[in-house]
Amino acid sequence: MKYCSSCGARVSQVIPAGDNRPRYVCERCATVHYENPRVVVGCVPEYQGQILLCKRAIEPRLGFWTVPAGFLENGETLADGAKRECFEEANAHVEIGSLLAIIDVTYAQQVHILYRARLLTPEYGAGTESLEVQLFDAAHIPWHDMAFRSVEFGLRRYLADRAALREDLHCESLYPLSA
Amino acid sequence: MKYCSSCGARVSQVIPAGDNRPRYVCERCATVHYENPRVVVGCVPEYQGQILLCKRAIEPRLGFWTVPAGFLENGETLADGAKRECFEEANAHVEIGSLLAIIDVTYAQQVHILYRARLLTPEYGAGTESLEVQLFDAAHIPWHDMAFRSVEFGLRRYLADRAALREDLHCESLYPLSA
Repeated sequence: MKYCSSCGARVSQVIPAGDNRPRYVCERCATVHYENPRVVVGCVPEYQGQILLCKRAIEPRLGFWTVPAGFLENGETLADGAKRECFEEANAHVEIGSLLAIIDVTYAQQVHILYRARLLTPEYGAGTESLEVQLFDAAHIPWHDMAFRSVEFGLRRYLADRAALREDLHCESLYPLSA
Repeated sequence: MKYCSSCGARVSQVIPAGDNRPRYVCERCATVHYENPRVVVGCVPEYQGQILLCKRAIEPRLGFWTVPAGFLENGETLADGAKRECFEEANAHVEIGSLLAIIDVTYAQQVHILYRARLLTPEYGAGTESLEVQLFDAAHIPWHDMAFRSVEFGLRRYLADRAALREDLHCESLYPLSA
C-alpha cells in the first residue's frame, strides 16, 4: 500500500495513538488503513463415495489439486460462499453439510473454513479457474500433487472421519515450514 | 474507496473480465481492489460461574455490554486473537477453551467467532475501549443492554450449554432486522 484510498495522498507505516501495531496511515487526511486476514471457504464434495477435486488453472499452485474453495465475498454466509465456489470452480451443485475444518493459515493472512458437502448429481466440469475436475476414489487421491497444506489436512480428516462414521470439526493452525 | 492504493489514481466500480461482481478497479494501472469480510474473534470468559463483560467505550454501540472481542489481526491464530482481545479490552488473562459459535453477520461484512474461556485469576479492568468491566451472575446479565445480536446469541448458547453440561458449536447467520 502506497497511497490513501480515501484521498489519494501518500501513506506511511506508523503506530497510531492508542494502537500497538504499525498501520498504513495517510500523511494528509490521517485515515488509518487496517489490513486483516481474509476468509477462504470451501467444501469436500462427495458423490457415491468419490471426492470431487479441481486441478488449479491459476497461481498460486497452478497444476496442483484442491477442493473447490475461494475467498468469502461481502454479504454472503460461509456456507453460501462454499457452495458458490464449488459452482464457479467445478460447475457443480452441492448441498453443504457439517463443518469439517477451521485452519489458521497464519503466514498467508488467511483463515480456511471447510465443509462436508454432497454432490447432488454427477455433473461437473472445469470452471475458469480449473484445468480439470475429477471424481476420485479415496485410494486414488493425488496426495503428492495437493495444492495446499490446509486442503490436505481437511481431506485426510474427512476420510478418517468417514471411515469411523464420525463428523467432527477439526481445528488446526499452520505455520511456515522451516527451510 | 476513491483512489488506487498502489498508484494513487482514481478507481471506478466495474466488473472485471472473468468476474461477476463490481470491484474497485484502478483507471490507470488496472489493479483490482477486492473487499472481503473481516473476522471478529472473541470469548466468553468465566470465573467461578460468573461471566466477564465489557461496557463499550467506543462506537458502534457505545455504552452497551459485550464480551471481549475484536478484529483478527494478520499473522495470529483465531484463539490467539480472542485471547489478545480479552487482554486489551478487559485487562484479563484467559485460557481459551472450545469453539462456542460461528456467526455470519452478513450485513456488517463480518464473521464472528466466539470461544469459551476461563479467567485464570479474578483480575481485570477497563482497557481503553471499555468504560467498565464486570463479572455477572447468569441471572444478572444485562440482556436489554447488549451491544450486538451475535454476542447475545453466543451468551445465550453458552449458558444453555453450561446448564446442560454440554459444549456444542453453534452456527448461525444473522440478517438485517426489518424496520
